[in-house]
Amino acid sequence: MIHNFNAGPSILPKEVFEQASKAILNFNNTGLSILEIGHRTSLFEAVLDEARSLVRELMQLNDDKEILFLHGGASTQFFQVPMNFLDEHETGAYLDCGIWGIKAIREAKLFGNVNVVASSKDRNYTYVPKDYVIPANAKYFHYTSNNTIEGTEMFYIPETNVPIVVDMSSDILSRQTDFNRFSLIYAGAQKNIGAAGVNLVIIDRNFKPVVNRKLPSMMDYMQHIANGSMLNTPPVFAVYVCMLTLRWLKSIGGIPAIEKINQQKADLVYSTLDAHPLFRPTVAKEDRSRMNVVFVMDDPEKEKQFLDLCKKENMVGVKGHRSVGGFRVSLYNALPLESAKAFCDLAKSFN
Amino acid sequence: MIHNFNAGPSILPKEVFEQASKAILNFNNTGLSILEIGHRTSLFEAVLDEARSLVRELMQLNDDKEILFLHGGASTQFFQVPMNFLDEHETGAYLDCGIWGIKAIREAKLFGNVNVVASSKDRNYTYVPKDYVIPANAKYFHYTSNNTIEGTEMFYIPETNVPIVVDMSSDILSRQTDFNRFSLIYAGAQKNIGAAGVNLVIIDRNFKPVVNRKLPSMMDYMQHIANGSMLNTPPVFAVYVCMLTLRWLKSIGGIPAIEKINQQKADLVYSTLDAHPLFRPTVAKEDRSRMNVVFVMDDPEKEKQFLDLCKKENMVGVKGHRSVGGFRVSLYNALPLESAKAFCDLAKSFN
Repeated sequence: MIHNFNAGPSILPKEVFEQASKAILNFNNTGLSILEIGHRTSLFEAVLDEARSLVRELMQLNDDKEILFLHGGASTQFFQVPMNFLDEHETGAYLDCGIWGIKAIREAKLFGNVNVVASSKDRNYTYVPKDYVIPANAKYFHYTSNNTIEGTEMFYIPETNVPIVVDMSSDILSRQTDFNRFSLIYAGAQKNIGAAGVNLVIIDRNFKPVVNRKLPSMMDYMQHIANGSMLNTPPVFAVYVCMLTLRWLKSIGGIPAIEKINQQKADLVYSTLDAHPLFRPTVAKEDRSRMNVVFVMDDPEKEKQFLDLCKKENMVGVKGHRSVGGFRVSLYNALPLESAKAFCDLAKSFN
Repeated sequence: MIHNFNAGPSILPKEVFEQASKAILNFNNTGLSILEIGHRTSLFEAVLDEARSLVRELMQLNDDKEILFLHGGASTQFFQVPMNFLDEHETGAYLDCGIWGIKAIREAKLFGNVNVVASSKDRNYTYVPKDYVIPANAKYFHYTSNNTIEGTEMFYIPETNVPIVVDMSSDILSRQTDFNRFSLIYAGAQKNIGAAGVNLVIIDRNFKPVVNRKLPSMMDYMQHIANGSMLNTPPVFAVYVCMLTLRWLKSIGGIPAIEKINQQKADLVYSTLDAHPLFRPTVAKEDRSRMNVVFVMDDPEKEKQFLDLCKKENMVGVKGHRSVGGFRVSLYNALPLESAKAFCDLAKSFN
């Protein structure tokens, strides 16, 4: 058995692979491949409708929320958000918690003013800032709920009257939270939602883009809403894989059920690492991500040995991101508890 | 047997479906799905490299051409081209040959001046204009080589010193032409290249974006070139399907071989329709698309009968685009000659 700890694109449920594989040969007994059906057919509309309904149901979204499946990854949203919501002389408030936040800030500066309300750069992004003021005149407040690379996760939603925009790419659907508190949620699909090549974007209807610049059609959220994510040919297969993954999540009990398993996996891995004399998790305990466990060793030679051992034991994707080094073990929704256990057994045996 | 005449997403080779289906369960005997491999692995890099090499080889591109696989469809390119190449007071020359050209023109107007050098609107876009002047000071000249909706195809490349930008979404790889004449070629993949959700963009290195505006990273061709189409997580599976389809095209003899078959299919279908008293192709003979055959009938009742008959005979996707009506039969690369013949037999039998 291969244990896939990839940070994204990452493991998806076995059932999803099986169903997607079948649908490429024969989608819903049509005799056609999912890759060759028209997007403006009842066949695909049913897929898109079901995906949207499942998002609404699983996240318990209220009726003000519009659900879009858009081309591109979160990197596209980094600029699409300020392009739609931030006018030249307006200010967007941003939290700087790592590489994704930095990129979002860089793109926002192309469109308006950016106020970085807090940063964890002082300690190498190993924690999440908690005390900061979000200026009341900010157009929105933006943060990254889970930092894939640095291994931190933000478990609170700030109390503010400013609309909140969140990049939830790497922890969406992994734990319960009040998703209705957000004015805009975006997430690249390739971790907990589905396959790479599509973005899930959830916008509150009351959060309206009012900017002076003219927007290209494909960048205009309102046009996508008006056209039900079908402004142009959507990434059909990627949306289909999302739908299958959402169906799977519902079948196992939804977010409450997966959160329990995710907590179990994270507890297992962090406690194993904490108890081990050689491994050192880098992140402050209260901010440790349940999705991406980042840790290092003090001896580079030992690091190499452990990496080789993981490889030998069919553990894939444990190498840390090139910007941080060390190790990263990703525990996304689809990673079975068995894989987390297998990793812990291996780590315990290492000396 | 189902005959799939969809206009896009459309039929792909049977071999591609089979290989893609397998790769979702077990990619290259890795024991992993193509959907769960990291994009910064040698596994995916090999896919991307092979896709690029095949494009270069099949289209006989010179070394000045950069090959990109980008998120989104042609609709994204409609604005990305002027955003990169057209400054506020500069002029882009555009040919207006139908819905896609109109959309490209609309987006270009957001960024600079547009000079529509010619239009076939006067005769409902049923032909391709031939005599027009491309102003020497235009930053580029843009046209759509095949109009999927109206059924026209432009078989000549204008003589001009102005850099040419072409939307080749629906006839790329279908016939020989001097692809090196273009400064920029773009094409949504979902007709002749692969599955929906990725764009092929080919840029000449000498065609440099020089604009005053600041570009979002994801919209900046130069950044994509510098990062080898890996500025962010690419649509992994969509790129993989492109690679498989390009491999298939090479295996059957490349563009010269497929062009012969495409010509045969088109000749068969048009001659059948021309000879039939009830069917009426809408496009001027010399501008008839080999990819999308558009035709109508004068009697709406007969149209309905024929549509029902097609459905009964497992012919999918023959209904005309909602904006034109009548019928459209798409004969993309992967459509077997047998399907074109089956359609002709059915058409001949109809009275």
